[in-house]
Amino acid sequence: MTHTPEPPYYAVIFTSRLVDVVDGYDEMSEKMIELAAQQPGFLGVESARGDDGLGITVSYWESEEAIINWRRHAEHRVAQSTGLEKWYAEFVTRVAKVERARTFKRVAAPNSERSEKSG
Amino acid sequence: MTHTPEPPYYAVIFTSRLVDVVDGYDEMSEKMIELAAQQPGFLGVESARGDDGLGITVSYWESEEAIINWRRHAEHRVAQSTGLEKWYAEFVTRVAKVERARTFKRVAAPNSERSEKSG
Repeated sequence: MTHTPEPPYYAVIFTSRLVDVVDGYDEMSEKMIELAAQQPGFLGVESARGDDGLGITVSYWESEEAIINWRRHAEHRVAQSTGLEKWYAEFVTRVAKVERARTFKRVAAPNSERSEKSG
Repeated sequence: MTHTPEPPYYAVIFTSRLVDVVDGYDEMSEKMIELAAQQPGFLGVESARGDDGLGITVSYWESEEAIINWRRHAEHRVAQSTGLEKWYAEFVTRVAKVERARTFKRVAAPNSERSEKSG
């Protein structure tokens, strides 16, 4: 899991469903995350895809400017290759400002302690 | 996938890893989502858990007030039962204001069209 600094910072919430044939998708997806991690202002990324096919990827960024720069860069790179949308049946991208965060981490099992911080 | 109104609205991004033994987790999880859906200001929820155990649930809300009311209600209900944290090795809750959204939906296959809106 991604350890982000104290808010405020930004999140890009990307939810998607894939088409049935997704040749090359995993490779593209890994490449996009690698590319993001090299960008100024990148704080981290978390990604999950369930058995029902719904995928959620949340990337975290220091500022809106960092997101805009990243998108410009990513779209340029994608345009050079294939067109991102061939893999997706549907997607929504949401840009959001993280205002508050709360973390819980289990310290030890089985007599776990509570370690919590609020931001 | 959840169809939300035009921004601004709020998102609660909940990322988690479960402990090894998760008896009753699915039931609790479903109950929490049912409960959320009954709350004033609830706009929708999306959830995915990958094979690596990382789960991401994003719920959408009309306002911060709706989130606060929901949390108060949920914590009360959870306190009556078992304590939410017994299932989690780690979690982070982030409250974020969605400022922009972009939707893509494939209209028909194989000659798909692009249907996009920006908010």
